[in-house]
Amino acid sequence: MHSVGICGSDVHYWQHGRIGDFVVKDPMVLGHEASGTVVKVGSGVTHLKPGDRVAIEPGVPREMDEFCKTGRYNLSPTIFFCATPPDDGNLCRYYKHSASYCYKLPDNVTFEEGALIEPLSVGIHACKRAGVTLGSKVFVSGSGPIGLVNVIVAKMMGAAAVVVTDLSASRLQKAKEVGADFTIQVKNESPQEVASKVESVLGCMPEITVECTGAQACIQAGIYATRSGGTLVLVGLGPEMVTVPIVNAAVREVDIRGIFRYCNTWPVAIALLASKRINIQPLVTHRFPLEKALEAFETTKRDATEVSRTLGTGWDQSSTMGSGCTCSSPQPDTDLRVHLLQRAEKGYERRAPKVGDGAQPCE
Amino acid sequence: MHSVGICGSDVHYWQHGRIGDFVVKDPMVLGHEASGTVVKVGSGVTHLKPGDRVAIEPGVPREMDEFCKTGRYNLSPTIFFCATPPDDGNLCRYYKHSASYCYKLPDNVTFEEGALIEPLSVGIHACKRAGVTLGSKVFVSGSGPIGLVNVIVAKMMGAAAVVVTDLSASRLQKAKEVGADFTIQVKNESPQEVASKVESVLGCMPEITVECTGAQACIQAGIYATRSGGTLVLVGLGPEMVTVPIVNAAVREVDIRGIFRYCNTWPVAIALLASKRINIQPLVTHRFPLEKALEAFETTKRDATEVSRTLGTGWDQSSTMGSGCTCSSPQPDTDLRVHLLQRAEKGYERRAPKVGDGAQPCE
Amino acid sequence: MHSVGICGSDVHYWQHGRIGDFVVKDPMVLGHEASGTVVKVGSGVTHLKPGDRVAIEPGVPREMDEFCKTGRYNLSPTIFFCATPPDDGNLCRYYKHSASYCYKLPDNVTFEEGALIEPLSVGIHACKRAGVTLGSKVFVSGSGPIGLVNVIVAKMMGAAAVVVTDLSASRLQKAKEVGADFTIQVKNESPQEVASKVESVLGCMPEITVECTGAQACIQAGIYATRSGGTLVLVGLGPEMVTVPIVNAAVREVDIRGIFRYCNTWPVAIALLASKRINIQPLVTHRFPLEKALEAFETTKRDATEVSRTLGTGWDQSSTMGSGCTCSSPQPDTDLRVHLLQRAEKGYERRAPKVGDGAQPCE
Amino acid sequence: MHSVGICGSDVHYWQHGRIGDFVVKDPMVLGHEASGTVVKVGSGVTHLKPGDRVAIEPGVPREMDEFCKTGRYNLSPTIFFCATPPDDGNLCRYYKHSASYCYKLPDNVTFEEGALIEPLSVGIHACKRAGVTLGSKVFVSGSGPIGLVNVIVAKMMGAAAVVVTDLSASRLQKAKEVGADFTIQVKNESPQEVASKVESVLGCMPEITVECTGAQACIQAGIYATRSGGTLVLVGLGPEMVTVPIVNAAVREVDIRGIFRYCNTWPVAIALLASKRINIQPLVTHRFPLEKALEAFETTKRDATEVSRTLGTGWDQSSTMGSGCTCSSPQPDTDLRVHLLQRAEKGYERRAPKVGDGAQPCE
Repeated sequence: MHSVGICGSDVHYWQHGRIGDFVVKDPMVLGHEASGTVVKVGSGVTHLKPGDRVAIEPGVPREMDEFCKTGRYNLSPTIFFCATPPDDGNLCRYYKHSASYCYKLPDNVTFEEGALIEPLSVGIHACKRAGVTLGSKVFVSGSGPIGLVNVIVAKMMGAAAVVVTDLSASRLQKAKEVGADFTIQVKNESPQEVASKVESVLGCMPEITVECTGAQACIQAGIYATRSGGTLVLVGLGPEMVTVPIVNAAVREVDIRGIFRYCNTWPVAIALLASKRINIQPLVTHRFPLEKALEAFETTKRDATEVSRTLGTGWDQSSTMGSGCTCSSPQPDTDLRVHLLQRAEKGYERRAPKVGDGAQPCE
Repeated sequence: MHSVGICGSDVHYWQHGRIGDFVVKDPMVLGHEASGTVVKVGSGVTHLKPGDRVAIEPGVPREMDEFCKTGRYNLSPTIFFCATPPDDGNLCRYYKHSASYCYKLPDNVTFEEGALIEPLSVGIHACKRAGVTLGSKVFVSGSGPIGLVNVIVAKMMGAAAVVVTDLSASRLQKAKEVGADFTIQVKNESPQEVASKVESVLGCMPEITVECTGAQACIQAGIYATRSGGTLVLVGLGPEMVTVPIVNAAVREVDIRGIFRYCNTWPVAIALLASKRINIQPLVTHRFPLEKALEAFETTKRDATEVSRTLGTGWDQSSTMGSGCTCSSPQPDTDLRVHLLQRAEKGYERRAPKVGDGAQPCE
Repeated sequence: MHSVGICGSDVHYWQHGRIGDFVVKDPMVLGHEASGTVVKVGSGVTHLKPGDRVAIEPGVPREMDEFCKTGRYNLSPTIFFCATPPDDGNLCRYYKHSASYCYKLPDNVTFEEGALIEPLSVGIHACKRAGVTLGSKVFVSGSGPIGLVNVIVAKMMGAAAVVVTDLSASRLQKAKEVGADFTIQVKNESPQEVASKVESVLGCMPEITVECTGAQACIQAGIYATRSGGTLVLVGLGPEMVTVPIVNAAVREVDIRGIFRYCNTWPVAIALLASKRINIQPLVTHRFPLEKALEAFETTKRDATEVSRTLGTGWDQSSTMGSGCTCSSPQPDTDLRVHLLQRAEKGYERRAPKVGDGAQPCE
Repeated sequence: MHSVGICGSDVHYWQHGRIGDFVVKDPMVLGHEASGTVVKVGSGVTHLKPGDRVAIEPGVPREMDEFCKTGRYNLSPTIFFCATPPDDGNLCRYYKHSASYCYKLPDNVTFEEGALIEPLSVGIHACKRAGVTLGSKVFVSGSGPIGLVNVIVAKMMGAAAVVVTDLSASRLQKAKEVGADFTIQVKNESPQEVASKVESVLGCMPEITVECTGAQACIQAGIYATRSGGTLVLVGLGPEMVTVPIVNAAVREVDIRGIFRYCNTWPVAIALLASKRINIQPLVTHRFPLEKALEAFETTKRDATEVSRTLGTGWDQSSTMGSGCTCSSPQPDTDLRVHLLQRAEKGYERRAPKVGDGAQPCE
């Protein structure tokens, strides 16, 4: 592996040992935003060879079930997913993955960009589900990393105007930098007031709202703000039960659609990165070698906390850390695993075989 | 006019003078489920001539705005709609309507069927928005008149299995009669338990849920019940604010879509009725002459109350009343208007000019 | 295996050793319309067990490529497909197939119905690609077996009226029996004249045309006949190069869409068959034991020739032949293979190992 | 009127008096790419007022027929369309048009841009019908004005790579300037060879081909070039009957879709122009005052001829000509109309009343 991003969910598993129904029962390797170099391939693999640089899609269906057959494999209930318990992630030196979900990187796409395809994919999937198209007016609620990728992707898909809201001026500044046409710093406005401000700056109600905070008030604002016949996409996740103005949404035919991760986004992202039409480097905030994994996690945690303070979200705080993809350091990522060990109160040894595995696609 | 259905919304305006933001300020002619015979046509009308039997689509856009131009004219904010204040309905002897929204009935389609196209349209629009297609498993929540039309339409669109829930055994019996494959009489089950029963009788989770009650618990059950990647359509309307398991819906990509009336359904309905593949006569429960309009309203109100008692819904209790389409009775629908007069506390005279108007399409 | 249909393509391979670019170079087991009983399952298979009755989808993707990932696995260029050279079919006593493409039959669906899911799937895929929906007016060109399944499926999907054309009155009679609303016996009419007759009997131009003959004149008629904004689906295949009125199609936005086999149709078909809403038994014309395979082929060939005489098509002449699924007759289907042997001029022995194989899903 | 573009179809009507079934029988005012300033509005018009700068959509439905109701008003057979006989165009000083099809231009969008929305709309409609989306690989066949707008729009919609073919190196240079990633100068290659070159430069087959020449060989190349499951959009129009490899298209499920003008594109185009994300100024080649209309036509004709020589197409050669929108010159566009007079062999006088009309929306 070369570059692996650390996401808020990684930190969350590390700190709390669970996200919703997903509970860490055994020590688990973290990491699901990754790129690296192929070391070895299975006998049936024809599209990759040792030495190829690849980006790794972390979700690999285990069964050819109805979801896979209809092109929505992200919904397959038995899917393998890096760093979602009990499946190990790829924050390690060597890692083995299904070749069908390893995508060759063109020469002009870096390893860091390859690792960032994962958070970018959230934006691609969200904007595709939202139906962003040429001339769309889009309201992105929340200017954390996932809000930013949605701004980037919406603009790439031809959105004519994107407005972003957040509590934090500094985060809104970041939104401006990645292409937002308008920003609104919110404070204590009611959801209706937020909706009204959005309409005011855009000159019309947006056809599409991408909600990235998960906060109840923001979801409500998203419904009020969206034009009749439009779509509200729920990307941020907050409390399980939320009170929403359902009649307002229903009688104006504002569709409410969630997203679960992504599917069919890696080829799209690689094509875009290769065309040099998209710049996702701003998403990288720090870089650490694998030996300093613990420090990387603590940095991400500190930033995420700050994020959480300002917005109540921030579940995808991406930073990449470099690791030589062929080196064989004897204590690869001890600290990280020790911490997980403490959480899970299980023996570290179980994980040991993972370290040093060849990158052998499991076709 | 020949046949005009009385819908729960008519009764509601009569009794309460308002539905949501729509407030009756002046006396208003009720009725929006209608068919009749053309008496006169405007000079530019070529597809109709006097003597033609027609069904009337009650919503007529007033502006060629963005919603009309994109085929979703039901969402046009300035649309004219029969019996939605301040627009008069068509429960009268003569009525003038845009020729473009009067659809010729084939000889083998009756006036009553013509009037019933309106409630049928709610089912067509809902099932189209739901994406019902060949082999769909469908859960219809609520077995009132609108639940029934959704059962009928879902089966017509090729649904392989439809299960209906309701509190009332007699209403479920009606669902069986119109084609429901399974029924579940619910009592005090939690939303999750209802979802579980639905899955149990179908042998799998339904891809589609059509919620026709508007009750919070039913909406929750609809989310839990729907298969990942499926769609919950909200047809019934209840309280404005509803608490829903939003994360459950979002991470399983269960789309939540409302409907507002319908669009582009009359030609579909007429084609189906002409093909004799659909029987909507069971929706008619009583018949009254126009002179007994008050009695008709009281009957509908009484039935609706009963419905409301058992399910908390029943906003479309259709019964048709016959009126000679060319007769010239001197006191056409006095009682009805008197009652509305009492509600609205305004003079009856304002409405008088409407009575006796020719059926002159206003193109 | 229990029941295996013989299709025109089977006969074509038998007689001519090739269809288009698919050339039989080695002896090949025929048959791709099959149902049977599970004898053995692989260790990872959980949805099937020995004794289960299953229908077999003949196409099994070999790679998780872009087509599979996006739900269009039928387009995967490396797909395995029964009885398309060089892949063996399932007209034999024992057959091994990917468990993911074996679908359990409910008790109330027969083996014969299970085998007929294959031709039915062609209709399902065609009508789905055509966008048949509630109230559609549909023109089916050609009344051979595939024309008939399209009539059946279009009606199931809510088509309000289906008109079928053919040269043969007896074939049109069959169309009437399976639900066609109108039939037109064509002779020497020009494509425009056929289009005009179609409009005349329907009372309007059809939104959808399903062309099942592949003949140039019929494709032309399909374009002229289809309403502006509608869709012509090409199901029948004839000459590679065809002259079409492309400007007529283009400026009226009549989409031209082909189909290649089908995908995601087995679950739909089984749900429909289980609901008893569809009757495909009329598609079975003869029944033979496996020992009389040669006779079955000669019968199909003779019928197909007759078909070919009347319409120039008939590539899917389905008849099912029963074979005990557990029996172990020593000369199972000698004649059939000998004939293929003569065509392919290769040794019969190569095929022998196939016979007697366990039904072991190849997951 | 302020700016009116001259299109190849204008020249064609001028020179030949007909395009297909549309025949000029009476003198006709040309021009359908227009912008101007509102002089007067009808009593019911609320979204415009005198002094507003507007772009004019030249097609205005006359009836609320099925096509209008479903959002495809461009297909309405009775639509009014500027400069399509017998409907007059807007190449004159004053012009009256339906207010619903006059779109207010923001201050930062020029009149010239407003007039260019018409050719841009062809690209928007084509790319929308093609389904261009994020990461698409697109093949644009033909590098005339319409090829160029398709390049611009495809890139705006997120296409990752666009390759353009043409006979002329200078035209391909223009394609490069507006954003094409690759160009291929074709000579005598077979359609298959062109397809092969397209795949070679893209590194894969394009999902989408936009054919802008109408030439038979180019349509054939478009089919061969498009990836299985993709779409070929026919924009250029050539001979009515064309021979195509229909089996190749059908069995690979390559959809063939035409376009007829456009619908719902003006708001999209204006939003894009206002966002300054699109530059269509390169499409303007010359500028003339209204008095020099004849010269403008001769220039366009000469250029179009050259185009026709190199590519066999060029039906949309846009150049804009300025005219003071309030001036009252006594011989407004004599020459132009005289020429049309010669063609049509009818009296010039019939057209006179048109000149000097107020811009009075015909609501």
